Amino acid sequence: MPTQLELVMNLMIRIFHQYSCKEGDRFKLDKGEVKMLLQRELTKFFSCQKKPQLVDTIMQDLDANKDNEVDFNEFVVMVAALTVAL
Amino acid sequence: MPTQLELVMNLMIRIFHQYSCKEGDRFKLDKGEVKMLLQRELTKFFSCQKKPQLVDTIMQDLDANKDNEVDFNEFVVMVAALTVAL
Repeated sequence: MPTQLELVMNLMIRIFHQYSCKEGDRFKLDKGEVKMLLQRELTKFFSCQKKPQLVDTIMQDLDANKDNEVDFNEFVVMVAALTVAL
Repeated sequence: MPTQLELVMNLMIRIFHQYSCKEGDRFKLDKGEVKMLLQRELTKFFSCQKKPQLVDTIMQDLDANKDNEVDFNEFVVMVAALTVAL
């Protein structure tokens, strides 16, 4: 049986791949996949946001290597930042 | 019912506080608490490590503000780094 922290790590990998495999590069999130992930996984947070450019802003902040996609490292940074912020 | 990502965030907060409240500052992990967290939550990883200075090294790497303790932000960075590394 996994520990709580192992469960956290497994879940982060599972969530990422659940969305990253939907279109294009199967190991990266494109803008549509980031939007879908936020809408489905952070429903309350996303529904309170009125800014239409929110996904663009998050993509720009996350996309450290500027390839217009979010890899697993960048996704984990987002989860860390949101956990501290929310 | 929480989404998977909300579960990840809740679990990270719960794990941190479970160890940070054991001694000293209840909102920070000291060296003993970091060691206990790693030993209990990452049993396989920790049991494979032979270096006695491992906890010191991790503490130094994590402790961005050099107060010899690990706050929640620093803990989340550790979880992110370990998830990518392991």
